[in-house]
Amino acid sequence: MADKTPYQSADKSIDVTALGNAIVDVIARSDDGFLGEHGIEKGAMNLIDAERAEFLYDHMGPGLEMSGGSAGNTITGVAQLGSSGAYIGKVHDDTLGKVFRHDIQASGVRFDTVAASDGPPTARCLIMVTPDAQRSMNTYLGACVDLGPEDVDGDVIAASKVVYLEGYLWDPPRAKEAFTKAASIAHATGGKVSLTLSDSFCVDRHRVEFRELVKHHVDILFANEDELKSLFEVSSFDEAMQQLRWECDVAAVTRGDRGSVVMVKDEVHFHDAEAAEKVIDTTGAGDLYAAGFLHAYCQDLDPALWGRYGGIAAAEVISHYGARPETDLKTLVAEKLG
Amino acid sequence: MADKTPYQSADKSIDVTALGNAIVDVIARSDDGFLGEHGIEKGAMNLIDAERAEFLYDHMGPGLEMSGGSAGNTITGVAQLGSSGAYIGKVHDDTLGKVFRHDIQASGVRFDTVAASDGPPTARCLIMVTPDAQRSMNTYLGACVDLGPEDVDGDVIAASKVVYLEGYLWDPPRAKEAFTKAASIAHATGGKVSLTLSDSFCVDRHRVEFRELVKHHVDILFANEDELKSLFEVSSFDEAMQQLRWECDVAAVTRGDRGSVVMVKDEVHFHDAEAAEKVIDTTGAGDLYAAGFLHAYCQDLDPALWGRYGGIAAAEVISHYGARPETDLKTLVAEKLG
Repeated sequence: MADKTPYQSADKSIDVTALGNAIVDVIARSDDGFLGEHGIEKGAMNLIDAERAEFLYDHMGPGLEMSGGSAGNTITGVAQLGSSGAYIGKVHDDTLGKVFRHDIQASGVRFDTVAASDGPPTARCLIMVTPDAQRSMNTYLGACVDLGPEDVDGDVIAASKVVYLEGYLWDPPRAKEAFTKAASIAHATGGKVSLTLSDSFCVDRHRVEFRELVKHHVDILFANEDELKSLFEVSSFDEAMQQLRWECDVAAVTRGDRGSVVMVKDEVHFHDAEAAEKVIDTTGAGDLYAAGFLHAYCQDLDPALWGRYGGIAAAEVISHYGARPETDLKTLVAEKLG
Repeated sequence: MADKTPYQSADKSIDVTALGNAIVDVIARSDDGFLGEHGIEKGAMNLIDAERAEFLYDHMGPGLEMSGGSAGNTITGVAQLGSSGAYIGKVHDDTLGKVFRHDIQASGVRFDTVAASDGPPTARCLIMVTPDAQRSMNTYLGACVDLGPEDVDGDVIAASKVVYLEGYLWDPPRAKEAFTKAASIAHATGGKVSLTLSDSFCVDRHRVEFRELVKHHVDILFANEDELKSLFEVSSFDEAMQQLRWECDVAAVTRGDRGSVVMVKDEVHFHDAEAAEKVIDTTGAGDLYAAGFLHAYCQDLDPALWGRYGGIAAAEVISHYGARPETDLKTLVAEKLG
């Protein structure tokens, strides 16, 4: 296979390249009443159109804007921890697009995807955080719908140890082609393909394709308990785990305050949740878990540590509003793991 | 696993034979103040002598007497679920000894061990149950100290699919010889040897021997999280599980309200705790988990069910005072598993 690729693969100079919907988050506190009144599915990522985005924005409380997007959050975490990262995603050449680019590059992530100069504006996600720290997301995909295989730089993929893809990429029309292209270049050049199932509603929308992917194309899977149950349409955690077993070389399944289970071929690790001082906003918990995990994976640390790095990064991000860390993750990990 | 278990089924007319300290429980409600005042280690099994037994009995509140003993609780559960069981343990030929014999036989368990006609009286365990449902046990071993290899009927062992042994047997002087005899007959006749680590303080007393046993002689291990950490002298659940991995063909590790993990060679099952209506007294939780598990194991049910049977039986016994079920376990399992 390797000899057929037109890409140079000898040098894996990038640890992780992430492919995702490039989104700016607008975070506001909310209550359950607001969610009910406006028909927002709690805890889910709700896809909305431009008109509804405007309507909800007009009605929601004061917001905190920050760069987000699931894979974007992950790759900035990866970079903060000291691994090298690149990002592929579509913004518009507008103010929010510039904010997104500034933030991700300022985190040390390589981000070369050309901004769209026409078409819809940069994507935004209106996130309502209820007092129980749950986040309900309302995503207007905007410019993300323009992401396609032409945005995937084969040399960047070929230079990456891991290509990380978010399940949300199945929502816009052509991103899955980008996804497929990236995955096949990764495999052809000795890289690993990693997928996060994103959320259980996303799994519900794309179950058949996700099952096929997990079985045949994914080396490293990230999922939470609900996503996994949805994927296999079973009601118990154990049934889901039995179905997953042996389908991917590596799988990390998170369970909120019950910690995570990491399977590496016939090795299984059981991690308690890392202590979080407080739980303010669970946005980004899964994204940062993946960040810590992938960093530890790419640095060839002991597999017993992969989930611990993930748990530590996740515990940081849920202790404040927003899906990007506020504490230096490198220092935090050093403190926790000595 | 289920399809490959090499039972010499023609000869194996008994599902489980349990070997344990034959003890009558005296259960009383208590508070933390009482424990502190009398130097009783909370949550542990404290070994006491005749004099202290009398002293504590005089000072504790009104008691509820019932047959107990860890392996005794397990084997009555096994029998209630419909498997055949036998018990080996030493009582004195006194009133409590007759009570113990009556109760275990009335549960359908074969119990042939000859009662001691002299020496110390039947063992008793003074159990203080605090409002947090924790039990603190004070065991006067009495007649149990007379249990020895002469009490092990080789034909009964040879006829058993599983010989189940409690770690507490390491406390009286000669019971371990009985244990060793039973284990070697079991293995010589194609039976399985199962051990429960009993409690973390017990593990602390006998760590070196338990490590050797687990590594070389035990086919089916029962332990809770604390016992396992104590066994391997590690601080995290994951480290303990990594050490345990591959040491026994089958291992069931309970985690209280966090459920249990069952390892069957390279199969791993993850069970949530079964819902308990209320938690009154956790005495016997581990014993009944083992009962449900061993029943399902001996009936060649799918390994995914072994831990579920265990969890259901454990949830029953913690919902009331005492370590023997009050609800018919067979009916309960049928209700829960359909």
